[in-house]
Formats: sequence, C-alpha cells, structure tokens
Amino acid sequence: MTNKTAALIIIGNEILSGRTQDLNLNFIAKKLCERGIDFIESRVIKDDHQSIKNIILELKDKVDYLFTTGGIGPTHDDITSESIAKALQLKLEINIAAKESLENFYHSRNDKLTESRLKMAIMPEGCKLIENPITFAPGYIIQNIYVLPGVPSIMQAMFSELVTQFPQGKIVKSKTLEIDLPESKIAEQFAKLQTEYPRVEMGSYPKQINDEFHTSLVLRSSNEQLLEKAFNKLQQIFS
Amino acid sequence: MTNKTAALIIIGNEILSGRTQDLNLNFIAKKLCERGIDFIESRVIKDDHQSIKNIILELKDKVDYLFTTGGIGPTHDDITSESIAKALQLKLEINIAAKESLENFYHSRNDKLTESRLKMAIMPEGCKLIENPITFAPGYIIQNIYVLPGVPSIMQAMFSELVTQFPQGKIVKSKTLEIDLPESKIAEQFAKLQTEYPRVEMGSYPKQINDEFHTSLVLRSSNEQLLEKAFNKLQQIFS
Repeated sequence: MTNKTAALIIIGNEILSGRTQDLNLNFIAKKLCERGIDFIESRVIKDDHQSIKNIILELKDKVDYLFTTGGIGPTHDDITSESIAKALQLKLEINIAAKESLENFYHSRNDKLTESRLKMAIMPEGCKLIENPITFAPGYIIQNIYVLPGVPSIMQAMFSELVTQFPQGKIVKSKTLEIDLPESKIAEQFAKLQTEYPRVEMGSYPKQINDEFHTSLVLRSSNEQLLEKAFNKLQQIFS
Repeated sequence: MTNKTAALIIIGNEILSGRTQDLNLNFIAKKLCERGIDFIESRVIKDDHQSIKNIILELKDKVDYLFTTGGIGPTHDDITSESIAKALQLKLEINIAAKESLENFYHSRNDKLTESRLKMAIMPEGCKLIENPITFAPGYIIQNIYVLPGVPSIMQAMFSELVTQFPQGKIVKSKTLEIDLPESKIAEQFAKLQTEYPRVEMGSYPKQINDEFHTSLVLRSSNEQLLEKAFNKLQQIFS
C-alpha cells in the first residue's frame, strides 16, 4: 500500500511581501513525515479570490489531503472560505456548531458574539469542524480540504490534533551523516552508493560555517533494514 | 506602467520532509518588495524531473522573472539544470566561463576541478551567468528563468547583486499600526476604512502574546500620499 499524499496552500499577502516569515510549512512537513503521509507540494499565494479558487480546484484532485492556512479570521481581508465555497460551488452558511463554540468562548470572557466575530462561523455548507483549543474559532474540513488559520501557535495546536485522525502510513525514516568535506569531494562516491541502493533516497545538503564547507548526507527510506545497510556503507566510505 | 511580476520555485525534498526551514522565500520577498517587483506566487516542490519541468513550463510565461533555488550543486540529487534544459528543449553543455570561474576558485585553494565539480558548470546552452561571490559556482539566467543555489548565505549574496540589475518599479510602501485589541474588535471599522481607500491594501495580522491577542494593521500602497492619508485616518480611529 502506498502512502497518502498531501499538499499545502499558504494564503497570505504578508508572506509574499516579506513582512512575515512562514513557520507553518515546516511544522506541517514534520508532522506529515511522522504520520507517514507524503507531502508533495506547497504553494504560497496572495489573498485573491481567483488565485485561491484556481489553486484549490487544481490541487484537490491531485492529493489525498489538501491543507490551507490563513484567511479565516474576522476581517475583510479574510477571504479563504468565500473563495473555497466558490471553487466547490457550495453555499456559505452559518455553521451552528461553530457559532456555539464562538459564543461559549466570548461568553466565558464576558464578551459577546458580534457580527464581525460571527463571520468566523460562516463556512461552506456541509463542512465538518476542526477544533481550535485556543480561541475556539474552528477550522473545517470540506471534501478533502482542511482549512486552518494562519497564526502559527493556533494552527499548530489544531494540526497536532488533526493529524492523529489520519491513518498512519509507512514512516520514511532518515539517518544523517555530518561530514567536514564540501559536497564536491564526496559527490562521486555518494552517487555510486545511490546506484547501489535505489530504494533509499539520498540527499546531500551543504552548509557554510565561517569559511568552511560542511555537508549533511541524508538517507531516507521506509525500509528500515535497507536504510541501516546503506547507512553503514556510507559510514564506512566517509570515516 | 505596472510593476514587473515574479515567482519563485523552491526545489528541495529537504524542505518538504521538514528537515530544513526555508529562509530564502522571505529574503527574496523583501528584496523584490524594495525593488518594486510584484511577487505573486511561490512553490515548494520535490527534486523530481517531471515536477520541475512541468512547473517551469507553467510559470515561465506567467511572470516576468521566474526564480528557482536549489539543486545546482555537484551531487547526484542536483537535477535542476537537467530538468530546466528538458523543459526548454535545450542542450546541456559545459559553460566555458563557469568552468573558468570554478577552476580559478579551486586553484586558489590549491585544489583541482574534478569531474564532480565540473558538473556545476554544466548548464543549458545560451545561458548567461549569475556571479557567486562566495564559492564562484555561478547560477545562471536562461530566458526569464533565474537559477540560484539553495544554501541561504550563498543565494542571498547572489540575489542581492542580481536584484539591482532589474529596473526599479514603483515601491509599495507599508505602514503598520500595532494595537492591543483582537482582530474581531476592529474588523468592522477596518473594513469601512478599506472601502473608503480601495487603492490602499489593508491587512490585519493577529498575534498571540501569552494569553493576550494583539493585531498588526498593515496598510500598503504605491501611492504614498494616499497611504499617509489612510494611515492618519486609521490612527484617529484606533487611538
């Protein structure tokens, strides 16, 4: 059985203007890896109806799980739900459970569910909520699309819970050998090892520390025995 | 005259596996913003021939400048140049100037240009080099595609120089008001202000500090006078 696949759409002008460094992709990538889900692609796009709509339609049939982050807050620049509803030709409606969740949250703070706040409960018809343990403004699932907020602390709390609901796939394990040589000095032997172990994915990642070049050699495979074997061979070669 | 547009393809399994936090997108985003170039989209994809080829073909006609980062090193997992050549139906060849640049670098270190290292000079025919002040392994320009390495320190040094070669566009300036209120308390008035100033892009970015919610209200426009006017109004409303 092959692993399920996933893609992520990061919706936000603030990422593309350079104002904000995205932290969600890396978090989601790690969680998907642990869950044995193959993360095949991510996109960063603007808060723009047409872009969101097109990319939702393009990616939703390409992967098992399509995640979106950003654009589900109460302000006018939050247009993710509207765009998704248009893409899927679904009506937007007040989700009763989401409304109750928000009401409870604001009441607990001696506050009220205003019209702006109610916007966070307006979702495509037929969706299923994703709980938000922090502000109680839920995300939702519609078809195979998982709609999440952009604020990292909230997104991460929600995603950590959500990911446990997906069936566990075969984990791709990795082993890393750090060497004090530049890539160019190991390329030939490393390529030869890759040819010997085609089922172990081998990547080489250079880094520069002061004026010196170091390289991380990363081996990845869902076959642990094969991974061990290839890694032992790698260690023999480079030590 | 409208501003030029740009997109970025981040090529790297290490980003999608969660091993590496990408730092290049944010750097490029800031530089493009300063240069008045409109950054419309970014993608993160795997080191996979077919994916790279398809996405190059899809994006190159969509934007003025298409940047790629990653996959131009000397190891077997560096397949960007091969994939781009295939996409554009161009031959790969040893670029004489790139070869000389590498030779000089290795000679200066009392070392030699080995076969693996020579791989870094194999580029699509007809390309123009992008200088690399750090390791002298150049990137290149082919058609409107700007091919850069993935190591942040090197990419950033190269990009900082490269970006100055693009014509300066109209800078989209931004002004930010930080307020100690959650988004939901300002949404209505903020939306009203947006309606009054349709040519000023207004975004609201919540953040959570301890248990408190704060919001950054960001106004962006290439019309500085209009931006000032709208920002003054914003300050009046929320102070």
